[in-house]
Amino acid sequence: MEFVKEFAIFLHKKGIIKFGNFTLASGKTSSYYVDLRLVPSHPIEFRKMIKHLQDKIIRDVKLDNFDSVVGIPTGGLVFATALATESLKPLIYVRDKPKEYGTLKMVEGEIHDGMRAVMIDDVANTGDSVVAATKSLKKVGVSVRDVFVIINRMEGAEQVLSEMGVKMHSVLSILEVAETLYEQELIDKSVLEELKRQINS
Amino acid sequence: MEFVKEFAIFLHKKGIIKFGNFTLASGKTSSYYVDLRLVPSHPIEFRKMIKHLQDKIIRDVKLDNFDSVVGIPTGGLVFATALATESLKPLIYVRDKPKEYGTLKMVEGEIHDGMRAVMIDDVANTGDSVVAATKSLKKVGVSVRDVFVIINRMEGAEQVLSEMGVKMHSVLSILEVAETLYEQELIDKSVLEELKRQINS
Repeated sequence: MEFVKEFAIFLHKKGIIKFGNFTLASGKTSSYYVDLRLVPSHPIEFRKMIKHLQDKIIRDVKLDNFDSVVGIPTGGLVFATALATESLKPLIYVRDKPKEYGTLKMVEGEIHDGMRAVMIDDVANTGDSVVAATKSLKKVGVSVRDVFVIINRMEGAEQVLSEMGVKMHSVLSILEVAETLYEQELIDKSVLEELKRQINS
Repeated sequence: MEFVKEFAIFLHKKGIIKFGNFTLASGKTSSYYVDLRLVPSHPIEFRKMIKHLQDKIIRDVKLDNFDSVVGIPTGGLVFATALATESLKPLIYVRDKPKEYGTLKMVEGEIHDGMRAVMIDDVANTGDSVVAATKSLKKVGVSVRDVFVIINRMEGAEQVLSEMGVKMHSVLSILEVAETLYEQELIDKSVLEELKRQINS
């Protein structure tokens, strides 16, 4: 079975993705809930996922075409660290707010003017955190042209980033996850249809 | 040259450790400043350090004697992630405050009652953050008996943890770093003496 299908089934079997009625951080309701922070608790699947992500980055961007990997705490930082370690690339990360003391820096790690970074995050929703991180990096001379996420919730991040000249790549879209689970008879047709309605609304 | 000496010299050459007059987050003054968040920006040395840390854990605790690796965001989480990935151990992590929305959980990742975790942090100072994290884990049934840090600032963490029945292990103490740099003629005797005074005060 190809990796993305295997991974979608793993997410379902471990309860990392759940279908039902959920209220998200934004206040919006959702027909599913996904918590990728659970993935690193499953080391074999986590490592397979990181290797798959690395292969995708090599195909889509090439390792020589960027200088560093940037993570967004805390969920995305774990994936960025594992990817940077696996591919022996320098790691930097962006805070969501400046440190309370000492220097007011938003970016941790060694940077230089003109540095080209590839950004890693776990889940893309509206793109707000990725856009904010990209802007923080730009202020210190670091450019981001590609963002890789594991799951694209299909809530607008791709378009918002595209308007900034940043390309979003995802290992899986939430629709692909649901379609795989439906094919495997792990969810009902009504669950898939509800998800499609949510994406198109 | 043995790894710990090589690593101390690397920290000095890259400006990851600096000597002078610094005011720390706690308001205290210090004759040195160390920012290990810069280490993952140097992938070769970062990976060597993680492999050294893994060897130390195997020697001191053995990989079979614990169930998961726990990290403390954000500095310590990067080291914990790389170590967990390298040794194929499940990763969990502790927040310093609960998520603002949704569940109020302090621990991220898959846990179970009776889980034995090894904690990883970058730098040990007074031990406050490590003690708080250990208590948060205890509340959800996860026990920590060993904490591994890269640098021990020798400011009391070892004693505080020992009173809780937790053993602290460090790759290097700040004194070992300074002694190595003095032997290599990279810092003056006065800098070493000032550091010794600070540790003993």
